[in-house]
Formats: sequence, structure tokens, C-alpha cells
Amino acid sequence: MRIREINVTPVAFRDPPLLNAAGVHEPWALRTVVEVVTDEGLTGLGETYGDLDHLVRVRAAAEALIGHDVYGHNAMYATVAGLVGADVVTDLHGLTGTSSRAKTVDRIFSPFEVACLDIRGKAVGRPVVDLLGGRVRDAVPYSAYLFYKWAGHPGAPEDGFGAALDPEGVVEQARLLIGRYGFRSIKLKGGVFPPEQEIEAIRALREAFPEHPLRLDPNAVWSVETSIRVGRELDGVLEYLEDPTEGIEGMARVAAEVPMPLATNMCVVTPEHIPSAVRQGAIGVLLTDHHYWGGLVRSAHIATLCETFGIELSMHSNSHLGISLAAMTHLAAATPAVTHACDTHTPWQDGQDVVAPSSGGKGALRFVDGAVPVPDGPGLGVELDRDALAIMNEQYEKCGVRSRDDTTYMRSVDPSFSARRPRW
Amino acid sequence: MRIREINVTPVAFRDPPLLNAAGVHEPWALRTVVEVVTDEGLTGLGETYGDLDHLVRVRAAAEALIGHDVYGHNAMYATVAGLVGADVVTDLHGLTGTSSRAKTVDRIFSPFEVACLDIRGKAVGRPVVDLLGGRVRDAVPYSAYLFYKWAGHPGAPEDGFGAALDPEGVVEQARLLIGRYGFRSIKLKGGVFPPEQEIEAIRALREAFPEHPLRLDPNAVWSVETSIRVGRELDGVLEYLEDPTEGIEGMARVAAEVPMPLATNMCVVTPEHIPSAVRQGAIGVLLTDHHYWGGLVRSAHIATLCETFGIELSMHSNSHLGISLAAMTHLAAATPAVTHACDTHTPWQDGQDVVAPSSGGKGALRFVDGAVPVPDGPGLGVELDRDALAIMNEQYEKCGVRSRDDTTYMRSVDPSFSARRPRW
Repeated sequence: MRIREINVTPVAFRDPPLLNAAGVHEPWALRTVVEVVTDEGLTGLGETYGDLDHLVRVRAAAEALIGHDVYGHNAMYATVAGLVGADVVTDLHGLTGTSSRAKTVDRIFSPFEVACLDIRGKAVGRPVVDLLGGRVRDAVPYSAYLFYKWAGHPGAPEDGFGAALDPEGVVEQARLLIGRYGFRSIKLKGGVFPPEQEIEAIRALREAFPEHPLRLDPNAVWSVETSIRVGRELDGVLEYLEDPTEGIEGMARVAAEVPMPLATNMCVVTPEHIPSAVRQGAIGVLLTDHHYWGGLVRSAHIATLCETFGIELSMHSNSHLGISLAAMTHLAAATPAVTHACDTHTPWQDGQDVVAPSSGGKGALRFVDGAVPVPDGPGLGVELDRDALAIMNEQYEKCGVRSRDDTTYMRSVDPSFSARRPRW
Repeated sequence: MRIREINVTPVAFRDPPLLNAAGVHEPWALRTVVEVVTDEGLTGLGETYGDLDHLVRVRAAAEALIGHDVYGHNAMYATVAGLVGADVVTDLHGLTGTSSRAKTVDRIFSPFEVACLDIRGKAVGRPVVDLLGGRVRDAVPYSAYLFYKWAGHPGAPEDGFGAALDPEGVVEQARLLIGRYGFRSIKLKGGVFPPEQEIEAIRALREAFPEHPLRLDPNAVWSVETSIRVGRELDGVLEYLEDPTEGIEGMARVAAEVPMPLATNMCVVTPEHIPSAVRQGAIGVLLTDHHYWGGLVRSAHIATLCETFGIELSMHSNSHLGISLAAMTHLAAATPAVTHACDTHTPWQDGQDVVAPSSGGKGALRFVDGAVPVPDGPGLGVELDRDALAIMNEQYEKCGVRSRDDTTYMRSVDPSFSARRPRW
């Protein structure tokens, strides 16, 4: 079962002005859809970042992988690694931590691996979760991923989510997302306002949702001292504190002084970071992300590693579409060690998708009580909506965004903005 | 694809009097063959230990797993874990290190997992190596596994391998095995004679085989001090020194003082041992063994962990038959981190097998230049020889051995023998 053809399609979809430590989301979010076709006519789907430096290499990899066996993950990985050579692709936004050669390879390999698992699942009439060991849960819980945000993009009408610029706005947004999706955990993307204000927002969430586990993620914009202060102030309130400060060493200093576990998707982003994080006791929770941990199987391996070292697991999310949501759901469903609700940007995509809507859902997959039931169908269990893909590709061609750059966009509104770390 | 039937068959095969720190191999080696049959009539093979305490639980697991989906490895694992409860099954010989509940579960689960992978491979017409990520090598190198041995069992005629009780005998045995199989690495099972004599044997091997990497494995029968002395004396001669002394702490003390990496299949035998071994820098090479590391997929996960922490990989072997050799070969072929030749007892099995001979081989699989070409056929690529199975099961029924007990057998010959550790 060899790869005959690979279609790589960049897409853009409307994104609200979500604020974070790097700036603010641009009006268009980018993704790349990878469609792998075998000599037997089976197709598989993968989804990855849309940034141009990455897209160029994904296209090159797609060419190099023609002729490969869809079972040959090791050989495909070696091909991608050879292609990347010594290159390091860096994100402009810096929100997924350090770049490295290993991370570059893992990011490029990931969508092809997912697509091949989709194909292998289809070939045997099995959902991808079964190729990963079978389900340990029937539905995967996700968190309500709250953002400080403007009411709309500058110069554009207000979007349907409203503004969230103070504790009341944040609670309001939580009510909206929980009302729609039934989430049972809450994550607030912080690093936007001075820590005192974000502490206040967390306290307001705790009061409004006394039973929901709460997380705060300032994307490493605090100093070690500030992180320790905030951590201590939020004793008993947070499930975990995510990336309060930068780097394994800084995180370890914070971890030693605060009562809750620290989580990361920034200081540990490839296997090569793990030994040092373990040695220093820097993290209690790893937010794994198959988009940069080399796909689903490699992420499953890392999950075992984390479990072995007593590191708990959750899942990180960037803006994504339904192919990624399906992949995340299959992986989490097959991974006993994922014990925290996973993050997803799905609500912010607001029904836009490249996959056909499921019955009962706006996007690819349904949410029931904040959890996504594991798709039963073969492979990932999602179908490409070619009309939607064409429209979103046209949006990509026209939108002018070629790489996610939250900082430059923010500066176009507030020239004094700086994404320096630490800011507080 | 559900499990309709599982046949569990204990077998016995003739074993030469191989000496080790625990005593001497009995005239019969035991194994258990597990045959899983699905509702669609596909069958898969697994192989595990034959010791009675283990066999009883394998039989119980076989009953409990009826009706399970062959893709549901997580669910099967949970069922086995539930069945084991708090039990700990301990080997009499102690040659695979500490026993624990986790190891008990992993050992019982393993043959069923292998059999299900065999079935899954057959269902898609693919060798098991493909289900594990595809081959990174076309053939898996094994080492010549030398043993001190008597010329034959007491009261029995000499076997075909001759005696090996001094350096000359050891070199002679190496010539025999290398002549037959083409091995390019050599391992000597030590812990039988005082260390000086075993050092002498290693030096004799080095002289006779200047290019072959050499290993020495005294099965933790030396003190820390003796281990350091031997390690220093063999500077530049050994590829690695295997389990010179007992326990992670002792191994760490030796590792700090000797020039070569230490390998183990005794002090790190389940995931729960790894953090402490890493923290203390106890080992440089893990000899993984899917028979007690929970099957092929779990072993692959551990391989990634080891690679991440800079621990090299080889493979451990107990006396085994062709199902295990096939499973080991598929796993090693799919695991880039296995960089040392694997151990195998295949030569000592001397053609006895429960699987049909391959063309060109005495046992299940061919050796070419000391390496086993990865089977191409679907699943494990080996077929059960039902006549041979029946004969070997009859041998089991008649032989009287129910649990491997090298020490008691040795004492029947030399009542003064003690398997205490450390002995030197």
C-alpha cells in the first residue's frame, strides 16, 4: 500500500481577536491540510500549521514521500529528517517554546503520520484509536479555553463572542462556552494583563464555577519571582499553572516554591528536553501535542515516558480544524495517562471546518458534556468537505497572511506593545 | 475481530547443562505456547515462560480474554491486571531480577499481545514489524551466547556441544556457534567461576576473535568491589559489562568507577525501576525483553524512553523457541534504538521447535552472518507445527519439571552449591 499522491492545501479561516502574551490573533488563522492517496485509492487526512516556512517544507516532504509504504513510519521519518537536514524552522509567535531541528522534523512528519494512520484504519475498517491500543475512554474531555479578547477586530464589526477584558467578561465568556459545549474544566489564557488582574479573573471563575478545575497560562511572560507570588496566591484554586515562566531552569525554581503542579507546552517541546526537566523537577504536567511531538504514535511513546516518571498528561492546542480534533481525540482515547481535560480551540473556529459536519455538531465532531465521543468510523472518522476546502483555500490565497504573527498585528493597533519575556 | 478461543500449551524441550550463577540448566526447558483464535478463524501465536505459577495465571488470563477485541490491547491489559490483583509471581532462578506486581502483569499479558499482533498482521497481510513502524533493518544481528557447560547432563551421554569449563573450552564453543550461525558479537554467561578465570576466558576470546564485540554477564554475583576490579581489568576489551552486581544502587557505584557501560536485565525490569536508575546513572544499556516488558508495543515505548535518556538498547533472552525469536526479530527490526546485537538461546535449542522449519534453517528462522532476516510473511511469519507441539507437550507431561530451578538441580550434583549473591 504505497503513497501515490499527496495533496497539500493551505487554508485560512476567520479567527477572533484573541489576546495572548505574544499579541493578538490576526483575523485569519492558517492551517495546512494534507491528503495522502495510496495506489489502491485509499485516502488519509492530516492537518498541520499553515506558516509559510513550515508549508514549504511540508510540500517538499510530500514530494519526497511519494512511493513510501503507508506502514513505513520509520522510513518516512528518516526521509523527512534527511530533507530537513540541519534546518530549524522557528515560529514568529514563540508560543510553543524553543525551536530545534528535532522539533522541525517532528512537526513536518506529523501530518503524514496521521494521514497514514487514517489510511491504515480505513484499510482494516477500524478507528485510529484501535491502532493505538484501543479506547480507554469512550469520550475525551476538553477544557473551555478562555481568552481575553476584544469585541471584534479593529475596523470590523463585533464578532459573536463579545469582549472579555476584565473578570466579568471572562466569566461571561466561560458561561457562553460552557453553555454551548458543556465543558467541565476551564483554562484561561493569561499573560495579557498584569498578574493581579488575571488572579482576579481566576478568582471570579472559581466563584462562578466552584466545581470546574481551573488553569491559567501566561505563556512564560512572568519572572520567576512573579510566578512564585502568583502560584502562592492561587493555592488551592488552580488544577495546574501552565508555563508561568521561561525555560526549564526557571520553571524548576518556580515548581519548588508553589503548591500546584506546573504544566508546560513551552519548556519541554521535544524528547531532548525531558531529561533535564526530569532532573530538575521542573514540570508536573506535560501538555503533549501531536503536531510537534511527531504524530500520534510518537506522542503515545512520550506518554508512557511521562507516566513512568510521574509526569501527568494533558494536551496542548493551537487554532485548528476538525482533522486535528479527530486526531487528538483518538490519541487521548487510547492513552491511559491523559488524566486532564485536553485543550482545544474548537469553539473559536465557530463551525468553520474542512471536514463535513457530523450529525448533531457544527464542526467535525460532537461535544457532549464538554467531551468528544471517539469517532466510530474507520480511520480518523472524518470526511474532507471539498467545497469547504476550496473556499478556505481561496480565503488563504486572498487573506494575505502567510505566517502567524500575533506581535506585528498587535503593534499595528498598539505600537508600544512588546512581547518581551518576562514582562511582569 | 474478537477472541473466540485461546489454547495454552506447556511444552518441554531438551536443554544442555548450561552453567550460570543460579546453578545449571535442567535437562528440560519449559515454555508455554499461546494460540489465540478469532471469531473469523484467524490464529495468532505467542510464547512465554513455562513455570507453573506463571502457567496457571496464563491459563486464567486466557479464559478472561475470551470475547476481547484483538485490537483492544489497553482493555486486555486492564483485564490481566485485574486478574493478577496484588499477586507477585517470583521465579525460582532469580536471573531476571526482582519480581513485582507490575512485572507479573506484564509477563502474563505479553504472549496474548504478541498473538494479537500476529493476528492483526495476518488480517492485513503484513508482517508484525510493519505494525510497529516498519523495518529500520532487514536483518537483526544476534550474539553468540556462550555458556560454561558440562559435556552432558550427569548420567546422560555427552551432548553435541562439548564441555566448556576453561578458557580453551569457551573459545572452542565460540568457534562452534560462530561457525554454524556466523555471529559477529559474543556474550559469555559468567558468574560461574571465580572472576579471574572468567577474565581469562574473555581475554582468550579477545585473542581468538579480535573483531567481535564481547560481553560478560555474571548475573549480579559479584560485590561492588569485585565488579569495579573486573571492570577496570577489562578496560578496552568489553562492549559492555552486564549485571556485575545486584541492585540499582550497587550498579550505580560500579558504573561510576568502570570504563565501560553497564547493561542490565536484572536491576531494571519494569518501568517503575527506570527513574531511579536514571537518577543514579546506574546503566548504559538496557537489555529489554518483551516477555516481561509487556509485549512488543510496550517494549517499543520503553525503547523511546531509553533513547530519550541516552540509554542504549539490546535484548535479553531466556531459553526460548521460534515464536519468541520471530517476535524479538520483528521488534528489534522496527526499533532504531536497538544498536547492539540481541541475545538469543536459539543455538542451544538445537533445532527443536514448535514452529515449522524455514527453508534453509534448522529452527523457525534462518541466521545469515549471525543475523535473522526479518520474516516477510504476514504476522510473525511463523507457522505452528502441530505435530511438534504435541510431542513437546507430551515431553512436558512426562519430564516432571514444573518450574525452572537451576539451583536445586545443581545441588543434586554438588550439595555444597550456593546461589547466594554476592558470591565473589
